[in-house]
Order: sequence, then structure tokens, then C-alpha cells
Amino acid sequence: MLKKGIAELIGTFVLVLFGTGTAVLGGGVNGIGIIGIGLAFGLSLVVMAYSIGTISGCHVNPAVSIAMFVNKRINAMELVWYIVAQVLGAFLGTAILVAFLKLSNMSIGNVGQNGFAHLESSGAFLVECILSFVFILVIIVVTGKKGNASLAGLVIGLTLLLVHLLGIPLTGSSVNPARSLAPAIFAGGKAVSQLWVYLIAPIVGGIIAALVGKFVLDTEK
Amino acid sequence: MLKKGIAELIGTFVLVLFGTGTAVLGGGVNGIGIIGIGLAFGLSLVVMAYSIGTISGCHVNPAVSIAMFVNKRINAMELVWYIVAQVLGAFLGTAILVAFLKLSNMSIGNVGQNGFAHLESSGAFLVECILSFVFILVIIVVTGKKGNASLAGLVIGLTLLLVHLLGIPLTGSSVNPARSLAPAIFAGGKAVSQLWVYLIAPIVGGIIAALVGKFVLDTEK
Amino acid sequence: MLKKGIAELIGTFVLVLFGTGTAVLGGGVNGIGIIGIGLAFGLSLVVMAYSIGTISGCHVNPAVSIAMFVNKRINAMELVWYIVAQVLGAFLGTAILVAFLKLSNMSIGNVGQNGFAHLESSGAFLVECILSFVFILVIIVVTGKKGNASLAGLVIGLTLLLVHLLGIPLTGSSVNPARSLAPAIFAGGKAVSQLWVYLIAPIVGGIIAALVGKFVLDTEK
Amino acid sequence: MLKKGIAELIGTFVLVLFGTGTAVLGGGVNGIGIIGIGLAFGLSLVVMAYSIGTISGCHVNPAVSIAMFVNKRINAMELVWYIVAQVLGAFLGTAILVAFLKLSNMSIGNVGQNGFAHLESSGAFLVECILSFVFILVIIVVTGKKGNASLAGLVIGLTLLLVHLLGIPLTGSSVNPARSLAPAIFAGGKAVSQLWVYLIAPIVGGIIAALVGKFVLDTEK
Repeated sequence: MLKKGIAELIGTFVLVLFGTGTAVLGGGVNGIGIIGIGLAFGLSLVVMAYSIGTISGCHVNPAVSIAMFVNKRINAMELVWYIVAQVLGAFLGTAILVAFLKLSNMSIGNVGQNGFAHLESSGAFLVECILSFVFILVIIVVTGKKGNASLAGLVIGLTLLLVHLLGIPLTGSSVNPARSLAPAIFAGGKAVSQLWVYLIAPIVGGIIAALVGKFVLDTEK
Repeated sequence: MLKKGIAELIGTFVLVLFGTGTAVLGGGVNGIGIIGIGLAFGLSLVVMAYSIGTISGCHVNPAVSIAMFVNKRINAMELVWYIVAQVLGAFLGTAILVAFLKLSNMSIGNVGQNGFAHLESSGAFLVECILSFVFILVIIVVTGKKGNASLAGLVIGLTLLLVHLLGIPLTGSSVNPARSLAPAIFAGGKAVSQLWVYLIAPIVGGIIAALVGKFVLDTEK
Repeated sequence: MLKKGIAELIGTFVLVLFGTGTAVLGGGVNGIGIIGIGLAFGLSLVVMAYSIGTISGCHVNPAVSIAMFVNKRINAMELVWYIVAQVLGAFLGTAILVAFLKLSNMSIGNVGQNGFAHLESSGAFLVECILSFVFILVIIVVTGKKGNASLAGLVIGLTLLLVHLLGIPLTGSSVNPARSLAPAIFAGGKAVSQLWVYLIAPIVGGIIAALVGKFVLDTEK
Repeated sequence: MLKKGIAELIGTFVLVLFGTGTAVLGGGVNGIGIIGIGLAFGLSLVVMAYSIGTISGCHVNPAVSIAMFVNKRINAMELVWYIVAQVLGAFLGTAILVAFLKLSNMSIGNVGQNGFAHLESSGAFLVECILSFVFILVIIVVTGKKGNASLAGLVIGLTLLLVHLLGIPLTGSSVNPARSLAPAIFAGGKAVSQLWVYLIAPIVGGIIAALVGKFVLDTEK
């Protein structure tokens, strides 16, 4: 159990550091671009799936763990343990990014926090809900009874890349409460006031995905 | 059968929303670029293949379903059912994109509809025919008797990316009547008058691919 | 045997049309860019490997067929037959690209022919030799006794992408006599006078790769 | 043993030539961009893994070989032999790149050497340590007892791409003493004075990764 926690911590640390770090250090949408940022998040998930995933399954995302709990793939104890490890890993990731920025004499105002500019809260909620539904639906199926264990990590990472291609112009694309929480706390301001959307919408989308997987796509039997 | 229909509906919804949505919200060819748009369509197909594909085979394209019918992999009843689900999914995808655009206070004149500017209808028909032939030939072989079931979803998605790399400057690249129909109805105007090309050419290219697969590449025996 | 020829013809047709077509229609290095052009060539090879490759092995390149002949994987009759089919396919690919350009009222001066500007012939020869050595070495190993049949097509296509990333600024990157021949004949001029480099260097590089594979990497025993 | 050495030499030659060569000839971060440079390094590793990796395991990196030695996957004799071959291969790669540049009448001041501008040595050391830890952790797991032999080469190459997405703006991204050594010797100046960071930090990060793999992720039992 301790090993699973350390694995989830490392995985979420890598996702947050490499994902948000590439976005910030690479110059954002006008620098490394939407594809580059999406690749950083997607590949982080791919490579963690094939490394720490051998121990913990590589959720690295509370919304994923909750969806797995809904479909009874993990129990309540594991759920709490996973989420604690994920949140700690995310904060470690943002802390190291802040260290990199300070060591480079760069501003620490932008640490890759999510945010929506053109949307209202309700619109952003809808977007994050749909993105998370698609992301977690793929996870539920590809790791389920009819899934493809060998390719699952690759497919899931490509789904996260896809979700960023569409989502970055809308909400910055989170689909992961831990990924949004840590940068928002460091950044403060608007990122904190919008944070509830990124904490709740991915969980709602994930629960719907778990149920659609179970009852429509036969993932659990 | 109902589950297959829901699966096809979800798959086509994802393809149309993420494909056309990335193109529109990402700023088109001069924004996220040909590669980004192609990636969005290609990855949508990859990740749907490994999720809803476990139930329905992930055609998400009437031209693919017709080619499968020509080679007797589905029957007439399934064909009709699949196409209805695909068309519904495509309209749902475009409707959600329109909602995103309205919620962002953006113009809804561009919803990712296909169109040809420099070509005449006959030229566009030829282009879509060849693109669809290549796309559906790969599908017919890689899911056929000598195919590679494990990698099929990845290979088919990469084919759709390839088809967009060449096709976007010519016709916007459709190879899928459902993907063209829904945005054209929402957009109206020229997209509707050119629509017949995108409805018929992919089917013609797909039927040729089915026959070449069967009689030259031994996909059915 | 006829089917193998048709398969090679289709495969080389797709490689040349989608590779050179993406380069020309996408606006070249300053448009779709080195990555986009490399992706078009690389993905063409991936998707042909998993389709027509099930019949013919998907050489779609005389230098590859000669290397296979050197290591006795095909006989002299097959070698001639493959090369004829590849050359026909390449001319068909360029002819269709020319048709697309004419139908779009675009110039047909650039049909994706290879060329070197900053290098002398000897330098270009060295470059094409090394690129082809690496490309064909990977092919020889991954399709050989210790290879990985399932992933071979993907790996080989990624190698072609890699070869383009380095080679485009130097020679335009050919590593394939058929791919260079057809566009050069259509384009004429300098492309024809430089053509000998693209016809001979890939074959030399390929033969060295075949021998290194056989005697150093134990690909044949 | 000789064959393993030749294999490592070829592999490191390809990594250095194609990685640094793409960066230099493609115009660097403002030309082919971070994604293009990262792809060149990452794909070099992918394609070498599936070719020379069948003989030597494709370390092509002294820090990887040392991590493998720490976990007793190779012995001391092999370690020395591998490192000698890797260093020779790296110098051959840079030498050929210099030849390409001279033949193109281009400056040989930039041969893809690593360097840090905004960071102090200590910051660069930390960055290279973390990048190497992540890179080599994935290698240790995916090639270990619970690994995925078939996909290992692809996953490892994608990890190198990921490491470049984050690392290029910070240190140029090395994670490989041989890859940094050869260009630095050719370039001289600041690259030599900063070289110790690139020689030591990847080894430190790799040793930590080996230990975390062994004791936390159960890679060796």
C-alpha cells in the first residue's frame, strides 16, 4: 500500500511538473503551442503508465480514482490513500516548477494554473465535464474486461493529448482536480476563485463515464 | 444492438466535436495548423477504437459501414442502424460545438464544415475518392483476416491523420459523410451546395477499397 | 506474384502522392514544415505496411528490395518485379499530384522533387548514403529473425520520419530511388541532373545496411 | 561482446548525429522548434532500440549503463565496454555532423552542444538530475521484471521526447553524458566549462532511479 502511494505521488509529480512546466517554460500557446503542451501532458501519462503504473495502475488523478471506485475496482481505503498521494505529488510538482522559475530568475505568476476567460463558470463546467467524460470513458474501457492491457498506457496518454487539443482554448484543459489544485494555490487570485469548476466537473464527468462504461460498454463483467 | 448504436453515436459525437472543434477553436490552418487538426481527427478515431470499438467496431463513418457491408462483415439491418446512430452522433457533436461557441461569444459561422475553394466539384470528388480509398483500404485490411487486431485502432487513426495532411488544403478532408453532413446543415450556404461531393465520394472510394481488399489483398478469406 | 506487384504499386503510389503532395500543397518547409512533411512520408509507410504489407512486405522502395535481395529474402525474379511495380506506382503518384495541382490552378513546377542546394554532389551522396544506411538497417533488423513483426510497420515508418527531420535541410531526404525518379522526370532541369545521387546512394547505403545487419546484428540466422 | 560494442557505437552515433544534427540544421528552437528537436532525439532512441537493441539492449548512454550496473543487469566489464563504445559513437556522430556543416559551408560553432544560460550550475545540476531520474526510472521499469518488452523501445523513446519538451529551455536537455561530451569537445569554450554538470548529474539521477525502481517499484525481483 505504501508503495502504491509512492508510485501515485511520483506519477502525479511528473504529470504536473512536465505538463505545466512545458507550458510555462515553453512560452505557452504562442510558444511551444497547443500541440506541445498537449504532448507534454499526454506523454507524461504514457510514460508513467508503463513505469509506476505497474505498481499502482497510474491513476494520478482523483477523478480517475473516484471513477474506479464507482465501478468497484478499488475500495474506499485505497481511494483515500490514492487521492492523498496524488495531491502531495501535484504540490511537489508545482513546488519544483516554482524552484526552476526562481533559479532562472523568471516570474512565478504563471505556474500553469488553469483558467477560463471567454466562458462563464457554467460553460467551463460543461466543457470540463465533457472532456473528462471522454477521457475517463477511454480509461474505463481500455483497462476493463474487454480492454487492451498492453496498449492501455499509450491509448490513455493519447486521449489526454486529444483532450488538450480541444480544451486548451476553452478552459486550459484540466480533467484532473489534483493538476488544477496545486498550481491554483501557488498562483492565487482568479485561479482560486475558478478552482471549484476544476475540482468538481472532472469528478462528475468521470462518474458518468464509469456508469456508461459499466452499463453500455460492458466494461465490468 | 442498442448498445452498438449508442457506441457508434458516442464515437461519432467525439470524432465530430473534437475534430471540428479543434479546427475551429484552435484557429484553423493558420492557428493550430494542419498537423493539429489532423491529430485531433486521427486521435479521436484511435481512442474511440479502443473504447466504444470494443462494442461496435468503431466505424463512426457511413462510408466505412457501407464498405463493411459490401464485404459482408455486417448485414443490411446493422448497416441502417449504424448509419442512423452515426448521423445522430455527428449532429450532437456539432450542436455541442455550437453551444461552446455561443458560450464563448464566438461566431457560429464556422463550425468546421468542409469546403473546396480552388477545385471544381469534379476535382474535389476525385480528391475525396482517393483519400477515402486509401483510408478505407487500410481499415479493411487491418481489421481483416490477415490484419493486426491489437494495433488496428492505432493504425486506422494514423491513416486519418495522414489523409488530413494531404487533404486539408484541397477539400478540408472529410472521407466521412456524417462528419460533413452535420456541420454543413448548421453552416448552410456553400457548405450545403457542395455537400453532395462529401456524401457520395467517400462511399465510392470505400466501395472500391472493399473490392480491392477482397480480391487483391485477400482480406476476407 | 501479380498481387504482390499490385500491392507494391499501390504502396509506392500512396507514399509518393501523400509524401510529396503534403510537401507541395502544404507549403513546404515554411508552411507545414519539416515535421509535417516527415510525418506524411513516415505515416504513409506505417499505414501501407499494415495494409498492402500483408501481401508484399511493403518495400515500396527499390533500395529496400535490393537490400532484401542481398540478404536472400527475395529472389532475382521478385526483385525485378518489385522494382517495376514500385516505379510504376511512383509515376502514378506524381501523375495524380500533377492532376491535383492542375485542377487547383497551381503551378506544376514543384512536384516535390528532391534537390540539394548548399551541398556538392559528393556531399549529397554521403548524406543520402548515411540516411539510407540507418533507414534500411532498422528495416533489416525489425523484419529479421530477432525482429518484432507486430510493431515493424510502426517502427519503420517512424524511422522514415526521423530520416526526414535530419535530411530535409540537406538533400530534401529521399532514401528511395523510386520516390526521387518520378518527380524528377516531371520536374526536369536540375532535378534530373542531380538524380543520379538519389538513384545510387540509397542503394549503396542499403547494401551496407544489409551486410551490417547480417554479420553484426545476426538478422538472418 | 564485440558485436555489443559495435551495436552501442552505431546506436550512440545515430542518437548524436540525428538529435544534434536536426537541432542545428533545422534552425534550433526558433526553427524546427522544441517539438522537432525532441522528436529527433526520441525517435533516434525508438528506432535504435528496435534495431541494435536486439544485440546490446540499446543503452547508448553511460548513465543508463551505470544504472543497469547498479541493479546488476550488466557486470563491470560490460559497463566499461559499453561506455567506451558509446563515447566513440558520440564522437563519430559529432564528427559526421561537422562534416555535413563544412560540406554545406555552414558555421561549425554550433554543433548542438548543451548549455544553460539563465541557470547557475547548481540549478542546471538539479534540472538534469530530475530529468535523468524520470528518464531512467522509466527505462528501469519498462525493461524490468514487470515491464513490457515489446513496447519498451517505443515508451523509452517517448520519454526522451518528453524530457526534451521540458528540458530544452532550461539546459538544452542532455540526460546523457556521451551526448554532451562529444559536441562540447568540438565546440569548446563555455560548453567545456559547463560540461561537468552534464557528465555527473545524469549519473546521479540514474542511480537514484535504479534504487527507486528496485526498492519501490519491484523491478528486479
